[in-house]
Amino acid sequence: MKAMLGLALGTIPVAAAWAQGVTLGGIADSAIRHVRNEGLGGMSSLVSGSNATSRIVLRGTENLGGDLSAGFHLESGVALDTGASTSSTNFWDRRATLSLASKAWGELRLGRDYVPSYVNWVRFDPFSHVGVAGSNNFVSATPTGPIRSAFGSAPNTTTRTSNSLQWLLPAGWGGLEGGVMAAEDENGTAANGQHQVRGARLGYAAGPGVVSAAVTRTRNDLTTTDRFDDRVVAGLYDFGPVRVSLALRRFDQANATQNNLLVGAWIPVGNGEIKASWVRAKFSGRVGATALEGRRAHQLGLGYVHNLSKRTALYGTLSHIDNRGLAYVVPGGPSGLAAGGSSRGVEMGMRHSF
Amino acid sequence: MKAMLGLALGTIPVAAAWAQGVTLGGIADSAIRHVRNEGLGGMSSLVSGSNATSRIVLRGTENLGGDLSAGFHLESGVALDTGASTSSTNFWDRRATLSLASKAWGELRLGRDYVPSYVNWVRFDPFSHVGVAGSNNFVSATPTGPIRSAFGSAPNTTTRTSNSLQWLLPAGWGGLEGGVMAAEDENGTAANGQHQVRGARLGYAAGPGVVSAAVTRTRNDLTTTDRFDDRVVAGLYDFGPVRVSLALRRFDQANATQNNLLVGAWIPVGNGEIKASWVRAKFSGRVGATALEGRRAHQLGLGYVHNLSKRTALYGTLSHIDNRGLAYVVPGGPSGLAAGGSSRGVEMGMRHSF
Amino acid sequence: MKAMLGLALGTIPVAAAWAQGVTLGGIADSAIRHVRNEGLGGMSSLVSGSNATSRIVLRGTENLGGDLSAGFHLESGVALDTGASTSSTNFWDRRATLSLASKAWGELRLGRDYVPSYVNWVRFDPFSHVGVAGSNNFVSATPTGPIRSAFGSAPNTTTRTSNSLQWLLPAGWGGLEGGVMAAEDENGTAANGQHQVRGARLGYAAGPGVVSAAVTRTRNDLTTTDRFDDRVVAGLYDFGPVRVSLALRRFDQANATQNNLLVGAWIPVGNGEIKASWVRAKFSGRVGATALEGRRAHQLGLGYVHNLSKRTALYGTLSHIDNRGLAYVVPGGPSGLAAGGSSRGVEMGMRHSF
Repeated sequence: MKAMLGLALGTIPVAAAWAQGVTLGGIADSAIRHVRNEGLGGMSSLVSGSNATSRIVLRGTENLGGDLSAGFHLESGVALDTGASTSSTNFWDRRATLSLASKAWGELRLGRDYVPSYVNWVRFDPFSHVGVAGSNNFVSATPTGPIRSAFGSAPNTTTRTSNSLQWLLPAGWGGLEGGVMAAEDENGTAANGQHQVRGARLGYAAGPGVVSAAVTRTRNDLTTTDRFDDRVVAGLYDFGPVRVSLALRRFDQANATQNNLLVGAWIPVGNGEIKASWVRAKFSGRVGATALEGRRAHQLGLGYVHNLSKRTALYGTLSHIDNRGLAYVVPGGPSGLAAGGSSRGVEMGMRHSF
Repeated sequence: MKAMLGLALGTIPVAAAWAQGVTLGGIADSAIRHVRNEGLGGMSSLVSGSNATSRIVLRGTENLGGDLSAGFHLESGVALDTGASTSSTNFWDRRATLSLASKAWGELRLGRDYVPSYVNWVRFDPFSHVGVAGSNNFVSATPTGPIRSAFGSAPNTTTRTSNSLQWLLPAGWGGLEGGVMAAEDENGTAANGQHQVRGARLGYAAGPGVVSAAVTRTRNDLTTTDRFDDRVVAGLYDFGPVRVSLALRRFDQANATQNNLLVGAWIPVGNGEIKASWVRAKFSGRVGATALEGRRAHQLGLGYVHNLSKRTALYGTLSHIDNRGLAYVVPGGPSGLAAGGSSRGVEMGMRHSF
Repeated sequence: MKAMLGLALGTIPVAAAWAQGVTLGGIADSAIRHVRNEGLGGMSSLVSGSNATSRIVLRGTENLGGDLSAGFHLESGVALDTGASTSSTNFWDRRATLSLASKAWGELRLGRDYVPSYVNWVRFDPFSHVGVAGSNNFVSATPTGPIRSAFGSAPNTTTRTSNSLQWLLPAGWGGLEGGVMAAEDENGTAANGQHQVRGARLGYAAGPGVVSAAVTRTRNDLTTTDRFDDRVVAGLYDFGPVRVSLALRRFDQANATQNNLLVGAWIPVGNGEIKASWVRAKFSGRVGATALEGRRAHQLGLGYVHNLSKRTALYGTLSHIDNRGLAYVVPGGPSGLAAGGSSRGVEMGMRHSF
C-alpha cells in the first residue's frame, strides 16, 4: 500500500518526512469564579482560561540551511469547563500560519493570526486580556459605539484576522521590532468575518524599556462608511521591583470613538507575582443621532500568581467595574445589568502548561 | 519573534515549558454489525467503538515536588466509521479536566467528567456500556419515564457533566475509594445540558472483592419538580476462573422510577475472555396520568474477546432484547419497533489501543 | 485513581499501551492566488492546500508477530488561511480507518477512505486534484449532468465514502495492485452522504510503467434510477527526462454522461519539477429533456515546484479554463461566470510537511 499512497500523493516526499520537528503542547487553565452584578445578586461558575487561554498548539520548524527556516503553527482554543472547542466551526482559529523565516530578513507569515493592534495591546495588560480583570472586558460589540457600528455581532478584527499576509521584522535590528499585515476580503461577507485588513506595528526595546505603536484598519461591507480604525500606543518600563505599563487604544468608526486607557503593574514577590491594572473606556462622538459623550467605565483589577513550578501556577484575581451610561460587566454574572451599574468578580484557579 | 510572543503572553513561561510530559494516545475500534428487529427485518452497518469507545486522548502530569502533582486530560470521541468527531460542538466532550493531586490528600479535579453514578455502574458491566450488549441500551431518553421526564432530548447527566468540581480519595486509604462532585448550572438552560449536579461515590476493595455505592442528583429547569436522582449499588467478586458482578441502578424523577439490574461475568480463556451479562430495566410509578407498571425489558449479552497483543484484540458479541410494554432496541437496526417487540444483534470487530 | 479507571475501562490494557507507535504529522500548504473570470475582473485571495491539501494525520501500526500488523489512520483537513477544520461536522473526514494487515494476504481496512476510482485518478494528475490546475475543477455538482443528478448538493462519493470495508492486495503479487470496497447505506439518507457503494481497482506496475483500472458504483435514494457509475482507466510511463500520464474518467447516471480526459507530464529540473496537464470534460446524453451534447470544457495547467528540502517546497502554478456551454471556473475568482466564458488563475505558495 505504501507504493499506492506514494503515487496517490504525487511526488511529495510525505511519508518519509512526517513527524519530524512536530511539537504538541498547550495550556490547561481552569478557575472557580463568582461575579456579583449590582441589583442582580451573584453567580458562581467554573471557567476556562482566566490566567491564560486554555489551548492546544501544534507547531514545528525546519532548518532549511543557511539563514532560512520553514515553520507552521496551529492553535485551537479549549473550554476546559465543558470540553468544547472554543470555535466549533474554525477549530484552529486561534492561529493557523505557515512561515518562511530568515534571520537577516525577517519572517513571511501566511494565514490566520493576531492583528498588529492586538499584539501591541495585550502585552501591556498584566492580565493578558483574559479573566475577571482582563482588558477584554471593555473590548466588546455590546455597547453602541465604533465596534458595534463596524461589525455588529459578526466576527470582528479587534483580535485576529484570517487570510493575512505578514512580514515581521527579524530580531536584532537595533532593538526595532514589528511588522506589516494585509488581508483581502476575498468577496466574503462581514457575517463570516472576512474583512480587508491593513496593519502595521513598530516598537523599540532598549534595556528595561519598550515603546511601541500599531494601527489596524479594517474595511467591510456592513457599515456605510466602511472603515474601522484600531490604533494603539504603549510603553513599558521595568524598574526591577516593579514593572509598569501604560497603553492607549482607540477605536474609530465614522463619528464614533472609543478610547481605552490602561495602566498596569507587575510586582515580583518570592515565587510569585502581584499584578494590578486600571483600565478606562471612554466613548465620544455619536452613532447616528445618539451622542456618546459621557459614556465611560473603569475597571480595577488585582491579582496574585503563585508559581508551583515553571509550568504550573495557582492564581487569584479580584475585579471591579464601574459604569457611567454603560453596562460593562465582569463575565459570568447574572445577566441584565442596568446602564450605570457596577460589577464585581473574584476567581481562584490553576494554570498548567504542557 | 520569540521576544514578541513571550511578551504577548505576559510572564507565562510557555515556550520553554511546552511539550513536556504530553501523551497522545487513544483507541480505534471498529466492527461490522447486523441487527434484526421483530417484524422489521435486518440491517447491516459498520460501527465504531463496540468494545471500547474510539477516542483520542491528550494528557499529561507534572511532578510538582514533594507529594504534589498537576495533571490534565483531554479526550475526544471519534466515529471511526464516518470520521466524525462524536461531538461536533464539544470536541473534547468525553473529558476535559485539570487536576491538582496529592498522594496523601487525594485529587482536586476541575472540568467535564463522568458523574459518580456512571463510574460506579460502568465498571460492573462486562460490555463497558457500549456495543450490541452494553447496558447503555437501557439508559435512554426514548421511553416515557424518569430520564425523559427530567431531560427530554437535551443532554443529560446519566454519563457526564460539565463545569464540575471534584475531590477524589487518594489510593490506599485502607481500601476505600471514591469522591464527591459538584457542578453549578451557571444560569444555563437544560437545552444546552447545564445542570446543577451533586454526587458522591464510596467503595471498598479488599482482595478479590469490591463493593461500591454512588448517588448523583441533578436539578434543571426543564421539569416541574426539578430533581433527578441516579443511585447505584454494586459489587464484584473474582473467583479466579470467573469474575462475577451484580449492580443495581435506579433513576427517579417525580413519581417515575426506572430500575436497572445487571448481572455480569468474565471468564478468562487462554489468550481471551468470554463475557456475559443479563440486564433488566423495570419501570414503575407514573408520568402524569400514564402508569408505568408492567413496562420492562431484559437483555442477554454474550461475547468473546481474543487478544492479539496487549494493545489489539478481535471480538464478537451477541445480544438479545425482549420488551414488555417498551421498545428498546439494539442500536443499528431498522427503525420502528413496536412496543413489546424483540431485537437481536451480532457484531464482529477489532479494538486497537495506541 | 488508577485502580478506579482501570476497572472503569474493564479489562482493556489501555493505560499501559497508550502512546506506543503513534505518529502525528501533516502538511501545511498556503498560497496567494489571483483568478480572473471573463467579463468579471479579478480577485485575490489567500488559499490553503494548493500543492497538497493542508492536513493533520494521526496514525500508527503495531507488529502483531509473524505476518500480521494492526494499524489506524485518522486524517483531518485544515484550512490554513482561516484556521477552519475543512469539515466542521466530520473532523477526521479525510480518513478514519482501522486495519489488520498481512504481508501475504493483504490488508483488511474498515472506515472512511478514498473510493477506488478516485485513487486510480488522482495519482495520474500532476496537480494531485488540487490547486488552480487540479483536475478537481471539473469534478463538481454545479453543472447539469450525472454528478448533480445523482447527488444534488449532498455529499457525493467522487472522492471518499464512509462506512466502508476494504480488502487491499498485498505488495509484491507479481506487480499487481488494487483492492475491493463495499459500503452499505445503513438506512441513511443521501443528504448526509450515506450511500451504498461497491468498487474495485486493479493495476499492474512493471518497471517504469503502470496501467490501472477502477470502477465505483454508488446507489442512493436521491435519484429515480438510483445508480451512479464512476469508471477510470489510466496509465503512466516514466521515460526518465519526463514522466507522462494518460487517464480517462467517466461518470454515468441514467442517460447523462461526463467524460474527463487527462494528459499529464512531470519533468524533473535540478532541485525541482515542472508539471503540466491538459484536462477535458465532455458531456453527452441528457438530463430529463435537456440535451448535454456539445457541452465541454478544457483546462491547461502549468506549474513549477522548487524543493527547499525534502519536506518543504515553493511552487507556482498557472491555469486556464475554456468552456463551451459550461461555466467551470478556477476556484477563487469573482462569481457569476456566464456559460461559455473563460477563467484564468495563478498562484504562488509554499508546502511544508511535518
